[in-house]
Amino acid sequence: MSSSRSDDPAELLNAAQKGDRSALARLVSMVERGGDSAQEVSRVVFPLTGRATTIGITGAPGAGKSTLTSALVREMRNHHDVVGVLAIDPSSPFTGGAILGDRVRMGEHTLDEDVFIRSMATRGHLGGLSVAVPDAARVLDAVGIPWIVIETVGVGQVEVEVAGEADTTIVVVNPGWGDAVQANKAGLMEIADLFVVNKADRPGVAETVADIERMLSMRSTAQWRPPVLTAVATSGEGVEGLRSAIVEHSNWSAETGERDRRRQLRSEAELRRVIAALLVARADGVAHGERWESARSEVASRRLDPWTAASQLLD
Amino acid sequence: MSSSRSDDPAELLNAAQKGDRSALARLVSMVERGGDSAQEVSRVVFPLTGRATTIGITGAPGAGKSTLTSALVREMRNHHDVVGVLAIDPSSPFTGGAILGDRVRMGEHTLDEDVFIRSMATRGHLGGLSVAVPDAARVLDAVGIPWIVIETVGVGQVEVEVAGEADTTIVVVNPGWGDAVQANKAGLMEIADLFVVNKADRPGVAETVADIERMLSMRSTAQWRPPVLTAVATSGEGVEGLRSAIVEHSNWSAETGERDRRRQLRSEAELRRVIAALLVARADGVAHGERWESARSEVASRRLDPWTAASQLLD
Repeated sequence: MSSSRSDDPAELLNAAQKGDRSALARLVSMVERGGDSAQEVSRVVFPLTGRATTIGITGAPGAGKSTLTSALVREMRNHHDVVGVLAIDPSSPFTGGAILGDRVRMGEHTLDEDVFIRSMATRGHLGGLSVAVPDAARVLDAVGIPWIVIETVGVGQVEVEVAGEADTTIVVVNPGWGDAVQANKAGLMEIADLFVVNKADRPGVAETVADIERMLSMRSTAQWRPPVLTAVATSGEGVEGLRSAIVEHSNWSAETGERDRRRQLRSEAELRRVIAALLVARADGVAHGERWESARSEVASRRLDPWTAASQLLD
Repeated sequence: MSSSRSDDPAELLNAAQKGDRSALARLVSMVERGGDSAQEVSRVVFPLTGRATTIGITGAPGAGKSTLTSALVREMRNHHDVVGVLAIDPSSPFTGGAILGDRVRMGEHTLDEDVFIRSMATRGHLGGLSVAVPDAARVLDAVGIPWIVIETVGVGQVEVEVAGEADTTIVVVNPGWGDAVQANKAGLMEIADLFVVNKADRPGVAETVADIERMLSMRSTAQWRPPVLTAVATSGEGVEGLRSAIVEHSNWSAETGERDRRRQLRSEAELRRVIAALLVARADGVAHGERWESARSEVASRRLDPWTAASQLLD
């Protein structure tokens, strides 16, 4: 276990590949923190990746995503699948975020060697969530974890983007209260490969399923019609069906070439984001010194608009 | 009215200041679209701003933010306040987003000359929401609208950030279902100046209020203790109290210097974001030509990691 005390990404990766979970956790932490060592981790793991299947899970806060993820992990374990989970928490200093999340949510799996669970906070990461998450997923991929579940909290643009950039994306809604309409508003219709109406022991399930089906009928692309499943995550009802549907979509996607097509698009989008992240780092380099202080105070006192001030600083 | 056919920001601003609502709408559209003309609008309006008070409204999808916003606008109109509303929709090509939203939600106010309502979509805007929204709010400010309500859909990191960057931020939750805990998870506790437990005709109101109060007690800063109000937006119950609380916070904030302190921080954060946005535009300039194509295919085939590829492209 002494290897996991190293700070060298290659050594840590070597240990992690041999099953050292603390080395794996250190690698993910390095990615989470960002900076030069995160980039080095990315470089080291990159050639070893591309084998894992990523599963994105998203939906409104309170929809039961964590419970469903936990139930899904249990189901996958019943099938002897090795699973990694990345739970993407907003980086709240108040909640204590990531660490608390790990313990509260996924308690039952913490002693299982074949489940690797990590909450990720990304405050301070250059480029934020959308840059950090693919890097973290690749760390799990590189050590041979075949299924990687990425659960996002919240349904903002970035979170929807992150959840949508998976091989298979699951959107979780609840019965009633216009959840289907809300999911539509939040842009979840376009990214869903599967829908799960969770908490299906509550009234209004049939209506919600019908709402989603109706909205799906309005979509022009008919290559894959997302199934609308129902589940009660707390009791495990419907979770076996969810696993089957994931496997089915995954197989379909691999066979038709859809998976490769999406991965190629993602790869390009990621490259653009990394370029932007590196440039933003250079922007922070501009935010120092006399010229910055003067621009800042000109803007604050409304003598100079931010666009003009920014252009001047960059010249 | 011929002035509003112009594309010149200064002319449009001139018309808008004289009450030409279609000129005002054009200016917001220009900001929404981004690009050079958005920057020109920003430059023209900037010196005229700083008088309006901005009110951010956020909360989980389905919490009733639009209905509450509409009820709040009605209440403010009863007090003869002139109000602007920016409803920030995710840019969904499927929902048709912004335009539909305008009509469905705010129908009752559309004939009121003293209410200006706009949904904003920001797909394609350089820098996205967090750069476009302050620019749009300043357009309304510049024409003399004293109250600007910014309603965000979704509770992602960016949306929370945008709603939090107002003079007064309102977080809307619902009774029961652990909404307070979810709000906390989404980072809403830190940004709230006021809480509203909406749909307070449902069971569980007292518990939700108590949950929020408990979480507030754990916060160290005690300069302003956010009041926890209850409301039924559909009937208007509690909305008068909400307006009073907004005015109270606004006055407190102005008198203690807290408003200026926050505005200064926002101004600096915005300048950084604009610098980043301009750099990202340069990044897009990199994403063309032979070197880009080669880097892209190296990354897609996993011969080169994105960080190394991006660094090489930028050199």
